[in-house]
Amino acid sequence: MTNPALNIVPFVSVDNMMTLVLRVGVERFLVELAGYIEEDFKRWPVFDKTPRVASHSREGVIELMPTSDGQLYGFKYVNGHPSNTRDGRQTVTAFGVLADVGNGYPMLLTEMTILTALRTAATSAVAAKYLAPKNADTMAIIGNGAQSEFQALAFKAVLGVDKLRLFDIDASASRKAASNLAGKGFDITICHSAQEAVEGAQIITTVTADKQYATILTDNMVGNGVHINAVGGDCPGKTELHRDILLRSDIFVEYPPQTRIEGEIQQLDPDHPVIELWQVMTGETQGRRDPRQITLFDSVGFAIEDFSALRYVRDRLQSTGLYEKLDLLADPDEPRDLFGMLLRHAAKQAEVA
Amino acid sequence: MTNPALNIVPFVSVDNMMTLVLRVGVERFLVELAGYIEEDFKRWPVFDKTPRVASHSREGVIELMPTSDGQLYGFKYVNGHPSNTRDGRQTVTAFGVLADVGNGYPMLLTEMTILTALRTAATSAVAAKYLAPKNADTMAIIGNGAQSEFQALAFKAVLGVDKLRLFDIDASASRKAASNLAGKGFDITICHSAQEAVEGAQIITTVTADKQYATILTDNMVGNGVHINAVGGDCPGKTELHRDILLRSDIFVEYPPQTRIEGEIQQLDPDHPVIELWQVMTGETQGRRDPRQITLFDSVGFAIEDFSALRYVRDRLQSTGLYEKLDLLADPDEPRDLFGMLLRHAAKQAEVA
Repeated sequence: MTNPALNIVPFVSVDNMMTLVLRVGVERFLVELAGYIEEDFKRWPVFDKTPRVASHSREGVIELMPTSDGQLYGFKYVNGHPSNTRDGRQTVTAFGVLADVGNGYPMLLTEMTILTALRTAATSAVAAKYLAPKNADTMAIIGNGAQSEFQALAFKAVLGVDKLRLFDIDASASRKAASNLAGKGFDITICHSAQEAVEGAQIITTVTADKQYATILTDNMVGNGVHINAVGGDCPGKTELHRDILLRSDIFVEYPPQTRIEGEIQQLDPDHPVIELWQVMTGETQGRRDPRQITLFDSVGFAIEDFSALRYVRDRLQSTGLYEKLDLLADPDEPRDLFGMLLRHAAKQAEVA
Repeated sequence: MTNPALNIVPFVSVDNMMTLVLRVGVERFLVELAGYIEEDFKRWPVFDKTPRVASHSREGVIELMPTSDGQLYGFKYVNGHPSNTRDGRQTVTAFGVLADVGNGYPMLLTEMTILTALRTAATSAVAAKYLAPKNADTMAIIGNGAQSEFQALAFKAVLGVDKLRLFDIDASASRKAASNLAGKGFDITICHSAQEAVEGAQIITTVTADKQYATILTDNMVGNGVHINAVGGDCPGKTELHRDILLRSDIFVEYPPQTRIEGEIQQLDPDHPVIELWQVMTGETQGRRDPRQITLFDSVGFAIEDFSALRYVRDRLQSTGLYEKLDLLADPDEPRDLFGMLLRHAAKQAEVA
């Protein structure tokens, strides 16, 4: 064999992912990941794009999210099961694979539950870089669950936002977030209503796990000039904002065919104008053009962001060594002799025995 | 934690798959797997079905093949890169995942390169059980590459076919197959042409890797009453049989929307009648009804067969213990506290250091 490791695929476990994030540093990880995401958004047209491949059930959804830039192929497996927390499971878990388009061989298998939280936050921060008011330093975070701290750190690392106004209908969630973020350079205020949280915030992040059409923000709560980062509520029948807010906003989206189905804009006519975020990044379209404008990033999460995250992790493998070697691919000495490999395995076992 | 192993997904490596196959015994494995496949074909209507999700490139294709029966969800990742053998890689490699629809958690990650070879052979044998002439004992195998031995063993184990007539344009491939199958109870004849191979065979298996439209079998080579098991050539622009053979045959397929694109029947009108194999198994339609009839199984490989294979392997895990425990899923003590898990990981590392 010319290459003794053709059977091996590097695997990043949850444990190694946590060590990787801590070794790089959460904020630096978010900044660097944001750079990869921005790079991929700027070459958006080269990607194969398709809405997620979803398998719905009464309990939730399992999705595959593939994409390719012609050189690399990536996909993520992700589930969404709102009632999972009842028995101690995550609502969302994920893993992903990066592969070489030239030979089809997987190059990386990695946990993506933590990585998805990071890439979602990094994407929000990249979008805000182009859309939020200049010198914004205060963000309201409505919904203080698993994603909230990552959002806070991404906005601090990428944009310098260091004043947080937290609200959750479950006050213990806000206390958890505040405690997790203590000592990280934030000025944190826990608020008793969404109304109170948005006071003085130039950026409003909604990141709740509500399953039905909900109205986390009503129209009167949103003043001119703010940037809304609508992260939570990303499936059909699941929204967070009152329709009137959408009508007053310039709406920026990742991939319109998917956002029309899953995003806040499912409340609007199917031809309501939206702006593709990647076009803002390439300069083809303007982002924020007016200090009184309300900008809305209707985030649903798209495969290209996962692709960027897979690329980022792949690029950190060699220098950190934070992976295991997974014997995932059959590698017979002679490609046409798969059965012979089985026979030789039997002979080897007989020797050992 | 109520369940200390919520983060763990059992992983069957190539090494463990080979040991599993050998421990069960190849032929018993094929018979039992055929049973699972038959079981799933008989409840075909309950499955979510979709053609594969393919990403094509100049060099090949990467595909995702998902399906679900409402209780379990399975998908396979598989590539097809004909020129891979040039640098010692497999043309086709695969891995797959079985998951619980109720909570979306993966229950099994397994190599599927070997498993795909086994499930393809088992599916061919199940089809032949319904379609081949009674008491067939002789099979021609045209194309003696990686899949050929598995086909031979499946037909022997499921149907008692023990006379093989092998032909490959590369004589060394036939010698390899004959040598691998020596001592396994076959009467083997290596033939010098396809014409010679089909003489006296009641079953003709074509399993070549030709990439273009090829004519492995011409019309005059196929006598009345035979069963053709057309396995190779399963993508657009890739066929093995002369069109005239198709016109004389009753054609049985897995999932018509996929076979119309990938199978031998891409040579025919899009409304040419075909019979769905599952309906033969449930008795809704007749399989072989006449000893002079030519039956053709236009095999392309469908996601439900992979699903059956994943179920089969899952059911063998506990009794054999032939798996590793993969730390694939983030499992914070408190589901909403993903970031806190990261902080506790840091604290744990600080303790160790």
